[in-house]
Amino acid sequence: MAAYRVPLKDMQFVLYHQLNAPQGWQKLGLDEVDSTTADAILEEAAKLVQEAIAPLNREADEAGCKFVDGQVSSPEGFKQAYQLFCDGGWGALSGNVDYGGMGMPKSLVSTVEEMVQGGCMSFGLAPMLTSGACLAIDAHASDELKNRYLPKMYSGQWAGAMDLTEPHAGTDLGLIRTNAEPNQDGSYSISGTKIFITWGEHDMAENIVHLVLAKLPDAPEGSRGISMFLVPKFIPNAGGELGERNAVHCGSIEKKMGIKASATCVMNFDQAQGWLVGEAHKGLQAMFTMMNYERLVVGIQGVGAAEASYQNAAEYARERLQSRSIDGPKYPQKPADPILVHADVRRMLLTMRALNEAGRAFYIYVAQWLDAAKFSKNEEEKTLAENMVALLTPIAKAFLTDRAFDAAVLGQQVFGGHGFIREWGQEQHVRDIRITQIYEGTNGIQAMDLIGRKTFACKGALLLLLADEIESYIESSVTSETQRLAQNLKEALTLAQQTTTFILDAAAKDKNTLGAAAVDYLDLLGYVCYGYMWLRAAVAAGSIEDKELAQQKSLLAAFYMERLLPELDVLAKKIRSGAATMMSMQDDWF
Amino acid sequence: MAAYRVPLKDMQFVLYHQLNAPQGWQKLGLDEVDSTTADAILEEAAKLVQEAIAPLNREADEAGCKFVDGQVSSPEGFKQAYQLFCDGGWGALSGNVDYGGMGMPKSLVSTVEEMVQGGCMSFGLAPMLTSGACLAIDAHASDELKNRYLPKMYSGQWAGAMDLTEPHAGTDLGLIRTNAEPNQDGSYSISGTKIFITWGEHDMAENIVHLVLAKLPDAPEGSRGISMFLVPKFIPNAGGELGERNAVHCGSIEKKMGIKASATCVMNFDQAQGWLVGEAHKGLQAMFTMMNYERLVVGIQGVGAAEASYQNAAEYARERLQSRSIDGPKYPQKPADPILVHADVRRMLLTMRALNEAGRAFYIYVAQWLDAAKFSKNEEEKTLAENMVALLTPIAKAFLTDRAFDAAVLGQQVFGGHGFIREWGQEQHVRDIRITQIYEGTNGIQAMDLIGRKTFACKGALLLLLADEIESYIESSVTSETQRLAQNLKEALTLAQQTTTFILDAAAKDKNTLGAAAVDYLDLLGYVCYGYMWLRAAVAAGSIEDKELAQQKSLLAAFYMERLLPELDVLAKKIRSGAATMMSMQDDWF
Repeated sequence: MAAYRVPLKDMQFVLYHQLNAPQGWQKLGLDEVDSTTADAILEEAAKLVQEAIAPLNREADEAGCKFVDGQVSSPEGFKQAYQLFCDGGWGALSGNVDYGGMGMPKSLVSTVEEMVQGGCMSFGLAPMLTSGACLAIDAHASDELKNRYLPKMYSGQWAGAMDLTEPHAGTDLGLIRTNAEPNQDGSYSISGTKIFITWGEHDMAENIVHLVLAKLPDAPEGSRGISMFLVPKFIPNAGGELGERNAVHCGSIEKKMGIKASATCVMNFDQAQGWLVGEAHKGLQAMFTMMNYERLVVGIQGVGAAEASYQNAAEYARERLQSRSIDGPKYPQKPADPILVHADVRRMLLTMRALNEAGRAFYIYVAQWLDAAKFSKNEEEKTLAENMVALLTPIAKAFLTDRAFDAAVLGQQVFGGHGFIREWGQEQHVRDIRITQIYEGTNGIQAMDLIGRKTFACKGALLLLLADEIESYIESSVTSETQRLAQNLKEALTLAQQTTTFILDAAAKDKNTLGAAAVDYLDLLGYVCYGYMWLRAAVAAGSIEDKELAQQKSLLAAFYMERLLPELDVLAKKIRSGAATMMSMQDDWF
Repeated sequence: MAAYRVPLKDMQFVLYHQLNAPQGWQKLGLDEVDSTTADAILEEAAKLVQEAIAPLNREADEAGCKFVDGQVSSPEGFKQAYQLFCDGGWGALSGNVDYGGMGMPKSLVSTVEEMVQGGCMSFGLAPMLTSGACLAIDAHASDELKNRYLPKMYSGQWAGAMDLTEPHAGTDLGLIRTNAEPNQDGSYSISGTKIFITWGEHDMAENIVHLVLAKLPDAPEGSRGISMFLVPKFIPNAGGELGERNAVHCGSIEKKMGIKASATCVMNFDQAQGWLVGEAHKGLQAMFTMMNYERLVVGIQGVGAAEASYQNAAEYARERLQSRSIDGPKYPQKPADPILVHADVRRMLLTMRALNEAGRAFYIYVAQWLDAAKFSKNEEEKTLAENMVALLTPIAKAFLTDRAFDAAVLGQQVFGGHGFIREWGQEQHVRDIRITQIYEGTNGIQAMDLIGRKTFACKGALLLLLADEIESYIESSVTSETQRLAQNLKEALTLAQQTTTFILDAAAKDKNTLGAAAVDYLDLLGYVCYGYMWLRAAVAAGSIEDKELAQQKSLLAAFYMERLLPELDVLAKKIRSGAATMMSMQDDWF
């Protein structure tokens, strides 16, 4: 099994050449970040991940978490790794500087997130959830709550958890039954049961801060009646030290397909003391603040684990000797050729590369828009950035994870029978990545968000922004070597726009067109976005010193345009078939 | 979790209407089989599977097999279920009547196989391996060996196992090191280590008969020097009773992604006594006798498990209440609509149906050709049948399992977060089906077989046979209602033939074209074959009494043509991009 190596060189290529991140940081006034700081951060993080986190991944999957008497024990090594993570200040990387955060841009932090997730997804979920909770607290909580909680959460001393789902309420949070009764002192008593709470209970941090969705007594029906509460496991006293144990307890942990080294908890709230975060009944909106970040990180998880799968597969393909090349022995001194000589094995590995590297570029690209939305002083740019984030987030969540799953399945296939055996590590990536297509809103829900709110509701206006950006990039930057790739991308963009027009027209007559087209439409835009990333990679390759890397990028760009972008055609065709056939099937015929 | 129900009605539709199996049986002189016998067999088998086998599936996955001191214990309930299976005579269903078999045609037996595999794949592997071993013995062993072994294997008293792979020799069996030294008495002493031996050791039968590939002292190099030996766990004495324990032992069992309730054994042969089966050095050919059957059964495993996944998903979609239909509440009396109302959920379920039902029809169709090859008295028909089997077998193995995996992933997605939790049973189907894409020759190997031996070597002659058959079916049978579907299929067939011509031309210049195109080419022919099945289903639907079933089949046929057959376009496009880009990547760039 290959030891996971952080793809530093590729991250640097994307940041410094493909997407010119340092220019962007400068433009946003982030004077303390440049490529030197960034390199230092990347290298330190890589060291931590390679030495302390990635080595845990395989064994931790076998060991899983233990649940005894309400306590969750994390797998061996997690506590120490978590401590190292905290000691390095990694939990504070993107945090608000007013409360002890480092205020680093997402376009840089996201690469560190990829490393951690590529090293061990189950472990990575703990800091990921804490970051998410911090974002929501930072954006919506009172100063008092922020002062009390944020510094200890940035330091990792206290961890975070998000408590949304209930047994009968997943996608449809309007159905939740957890309730909150006001107390005399301004706090609330929270009662109810939540499920699927990642790291809702564990032994890595001394306290766990739950952000819980619940309904106040006077709450309106449905999703407009949801409020958000902060419910700590231990209630801090006035001095900020841990006080009383709160009435929030883990009832059990789930047996899952993957991310087995993380605890997925049933959490019981039995008049637990909590504090309102943000306005009453506006808990869902508060949640959405961090959704764009969290959904992007889920996409990043996919890329991270798919990268690990690629590295393992490439090593195996170089070392596994079996049969000879179809056009004669390539390594005649060996008893057989490495399987890397076979075109079909190359097809699998290059598909993984083409998807993973585009995915990496794309999440950094989306993170750049998040940075612009957060840091820009220019209102017009800010609005554009917010719109781009709105459009691209469902794609980043769903397309990255769907393609990561494809990649990991290929990475397993390269191994033949050994890919099915747990000790080789390849099947774990498939099992782990599978959850990224499901949680934080299933990929079907992402697709409905994209085609509904982000397309139909605005009559395709957001897509025009993306099209403008791509067209002006092509106009300004394409070289003679990349002309043909640009042409491919232009045609893809035209098809995407035509398909969008079709959808807008058809959905005006039958709204089910949206549901029928949603997943294919998200894929269609995803392939366009990856095509845009590959064009930019090929253009950037023309001006870097590392000629071998430049050749690899050019070949991969060509491979993407030849072998993956054509998926567009069939997606467009499927979408045009509409909803009639599927809606004609009677409910009781299923 | 839905209890698995055998899809009897669909099996009967395929056998009696879509593919006119009873006519075929009659034509082949199988006078003892008609739809009455067939129904009796189907119904009895369904009872056994639903009552005794399927209920084991979930728990057995959790329990797994135990390995202690060289002994393998199967999960609770397997021994009893195996006994019931044997008592019912199910192991003898397709066996040679001269040795106690029932001689039933594969086109019927295959449906029973789907039931068993749909009920529990791990369990189903035991009779499947025994049947495979019986086939090889029946075709190649001496009368003495046949008399001694076949009756007890048909009865299930003794089980079978196939021992091919070694740690360094999987696809490339020419590299095996297991050796066979001749003994004085005409038997051989076999020594070596085999891996990935499914049910190589267990407690369900009193004896296990291994068919082992090994090399004789004078063996030529490579795959032309492999011989096949029969090595029983207990050596029967002259009276056929169990005698001495043979020196074949299980060294360990693998930890796997799925089919966890089956034992995947490392088998050590330490001068174990064995008997030559077939000619010396011709063991691979002997293995290939049963390959066509075994590979088809692997395809059937996929369909069986994907059917179980569909049933579970459909039940969940009918019962899970969440949100409202996009065009207004469909079940206003309920707190929310069942998720079945959403077009995207229907898209997933109907895709599963369209793939599963075509898969079922297709394996029965291939089985009909196997029957013709075995039972026909007409030499021309026999040759045609053998050629069709040669062409269709790699498709049946790879396309059925790849599409079954797609289906099971969709079936899991329908469940949202619950699909990731083991107790719901959906993720197990994904893990179990995954192996079918890998074992019995990976799907990449199947694709190379199809495009190499079955296409390039015969200059596309085999595909012409299939095209003839489809064209003459269209000419003779298409009705006005199915005219449009026939047109879709015709276009698909034309594209397949054009693509084949391209491949033959391109591969004459660069053989790597074959490897580069292989998997896409297999998919392309697979989609054509499923299209053919759906056309036949739609035609058959026009003349059945059950009008609801007829409507379902017509809708599904339309759905397939609109939503799945278009995949052809992109496959053809990918194939035309050739091998140049992927072969240009230097080995050390991976």
